[in-house]
Amino acid sequence: MNAAVITIGKEILIGQITDTNAAFIGQNLTETGLEVVRMITVADTVESIESALKEASEYAGIIISTGGLGPTSDDVTKPALCRYFQTSLALHLPTRDHIQQLLAARNMQMNELNAAQAMLPASAQVLFNQYGTAPGLWFEKEGKYYIFLPGVPFEMKAILLDYLLPELKKRFSLPLILHRTIMTQGLPESYMAERLQDFERQLPPGVSLAYLPSYGGVRLRISASGRNRQELEHLVDGQIQLALKVIQPFVYGYDEESLPEAIGKILRERRLSLSVAESCTGGSIAAAVTSVPGSSEYFKGGIVAYSNEIKEKELLVPAGLIQKHGAVSKEAVMAMAGGILRKFNADLTIAVTGIAGPGGGTPDKPVGTVWIAVGDKSNIVARAFRFGENRERNIYRTTQTALNMLRMLVQGIDIHAVFQGLP
Amino acid sequence: MNAAVITIGKEILIGQITDTNAAFIGQNLTETGLEVVRMITVADTVESIESALKEASEYAGIIISTGGLGPTSDDVTKPALCRYFQTSLALHLPTRDHIQQLLAARNMQMNELNAAQAMLPASAQVLFNQYGTAPGLWFEKEGKYYIFLPGVPFEMKAILLDYLLPELKKRFSLPLILHRTIMTQGLPESYMAERLQDFERQLPPGVSLAYLPSYGGVRLRISASGRNRQELEHLVDGQIQLALKVIQPFVYGYDEESLPEAIGKILRERRLSLSVAESCTGGSIAAAVTSVPGSSEYFKGGIVAYSNEIKEKELLVPAGLIQKHGAVSKEAVMAMAGGILRKFNADLTIAVTGIAGPGGGTPDKPVGTVWIAVGDKSNIVARAFRFGENRERNIYRTTQTALNMLRMLVQGIDIHAVFQGLP
Repeated sequence: MNAAVITIGKEILIGQITDTNAAFIGQNLTETGLEVVRMITVADTVESIESALKEASEYAGIIISTGGLGPTSDDVTKPALCRYFQTSLALHLPTRDHIQQLLAARNMQMNELNAAQAMLPASAQVLFNQYGTAPGLWFEKEGKYYIFLPGVPFEMKAILLDYLLPELKKRFSLPLILHRTIMTQGLPESYMAERLQDFERQLPPGVSLAYLPSYGGVRLRISASGRNRQELEHLVDGQIQLALKVIQPFVYGYDEESLPEAIGKILRERRLSLSVAESCTGGSIAAAVTSVPGSSEYFKGGIVAYSNEIKEKELLVPAGLIQKHGAVSKEAVMAMAGGILRKFNADLTIAVTGIAGPGGGTPDKPVGTVWIAVGDKSNIVARAFRFGENRERNIYRTTQTALNMLRMLVQGIDIHAVFQGLP
Repeated sequence: MNAAVITIGKEILIGQITDTNAAFIGQNLTETGLEVVRMITVADTVESIESALKEASEYAGIIISTGGLGPTSDDVTKPALCRYFQTSLALHLPTRDHIQQLLAARNMQMNELNAAQAMLPASAQVLFNQYGTAPGLWFEKEGKYYIFLPGVPFEMKAILLDYLLPELKKRFSLPLILHRTIMTQGLPESYMAERLQDFERQLPPGVSLAYLPSYGGVRLRISASGRNRQELEHLVDGQIQLALKVIQPFVYGYDEESLPEAIGKILRERRLSLSVAESCTGGSIAAAVTSVPGSSEYFKGGIVAYSNEIKEKELLVPAGLIQKHGAVSKEAVMAMAGGILRKFNADLTIAVTGIAGPGGGTPDKPVGTVWIAVGDKSNIVARAFRFGENRERNIYRTTQTALNMLRMLVQGIDIHAVFQGLP
């Protein structure tokens, strides 16, 4: 069954806040088996609310709306609902009692604004809001269902999870939709799509594939709908195995796992420690590694050697090496990796040096040129990359690529072979 | 003039990503003097894109859409546009050349998918995308303007800011809206609002104040509308001076300047160098400092000492000190600051040690307890903070607070006095 989400509030339209309510509702409705076909955001005026309801009802059988039910916008929203559903306001006693209790708990007296919140459209079924003064409202009209929730996120979430979703599951026989996401890093989207052409062609009916790119990484979402969870899981798992046949070395995890999380898991399992030596990433690799709770179990620390003086003094890069080969060179990155391994006495290391930009490029080594090394005490692998011109992205892509190379190293993947022929 | 925003992508409808593009576009259109009346999100199917365009055109004269322009098979926007605008795809040579250049810079070959991106609807005006392969498209139909931008945020933002907004300002006689933003750090929003009560009451007609909070920092946006730029600038400048009277020590810059940028400006001006010693922030302070182009002029580097062993060995924290006082203590943070100053021989330093969480807290030092020190060779100032329970926010707030303390130190602000009485 199709669903639409309406969020009401000028603060969303002027970009003062990001609409996280719509995403939360979208995710939960999808997981319940509804298909969200449209999201609409409108200002809190009678006309725009009415027109959004009308519009949404053309595409969806269930319309869920948030916002515009608080005490300050009552005068606009509830009359709009009364007009649309041809009903009028009436005192709802349980709501009045609940408001009174809430206020008493905060040592507050009921004022006119609070009292008005207990006046609700007579034809609505009331959804209890344990955390706030504005309850949810449920209407039926011409075979369509309309649900109005308050805009305060934790109040909305509580009503949705505790009352609305169970009610929807009870009333409708919903198909099951299963999504799984394959997290990849290192293969550009266009190369990925080329490798997966045959895979896409063989997708069974009811199974779909979506590409969700981010800098250098691509998330592949496989979706399937049906009636039986076990069958669906089996179906999707089978499809994932097929996809892996052509992209396996680039897959680091599933279902929104981050690359630092995936690495943390591997290092913890294998009881390996890590230290990093950073130049152009300026601390971003260490920051990514330590974004994971519990990373102190495997991360010893690192050195950000932004100046050549510090590279020599703290990372033990031999005097003269930088002068001879340059700070952005295979020789330099290998020396940095070796230096931090000796100093921090960790099992594994990442070292990077490059030109993040916008300054510092030369015809020979333009902005975006980066050397990355990963290794342990017996073996260090280094590779050069040519990223783009944007500083922020160069730092991010260097960080992700370095972490991905570390993962490949630990998993025994041949890094040079995997990157052969790739940009 | 009314505007509508359409975002295309199933990943938004199913709640897999939060729609930050719509917020960015909403904010920028509003600041340009357009009124955003509706936002619509639809799936990437020809039918839903067409119906969204039709719907949006009923409310708005300018329709801006993002997403669905990528190279993969789930991107169907272009066929939908050909149908809606009754045109067909044609090879756009400048776009093909640009794609070729982008690929060449990354050592990539053009494949079929990339080549297809140069096929554009013939009746569209092309908006150059310097960062990506999918350009923006501009159409006119029955007196309405339709603009399509790629969904990758930084590509969308660049086209919007560099081409689209200037073009809209040129074409339409939009009222002049002047915004200036005061960037503050360190004073919580409720304290800020209390200090600014009198200021808010005296705001002249046509001038408004908005609070745009983020973790620990608050942006104050002062807006004024009128017809004469000089008059508006004079008016807003006067208001800023009034606000500064009560919040000056917390103001680090204006108009979306970042704290690391503000610090970079000060350090460059005064020819001072910086090194950092980080524990709980795990590299985030160094990463923030080096996010600024040209930071190599003043940033020497730093040490991420995640383990106590590294604090002693690399940051010269005396043996026994951590055992006696704990790694999260005034003594430890002062020793870390002194150690990195001696080792890196920089003029200034930041040192931090704390419990980012979720593990590692004790009744005495709960998660969120952080010691921050800033100083130079003659004077080090340390202060304890108690942030929250969320790891990511603790790291971010520690980073921002540490940078802000460094700014105050260099600007001669009495740090202890300024933070007196604050949480």
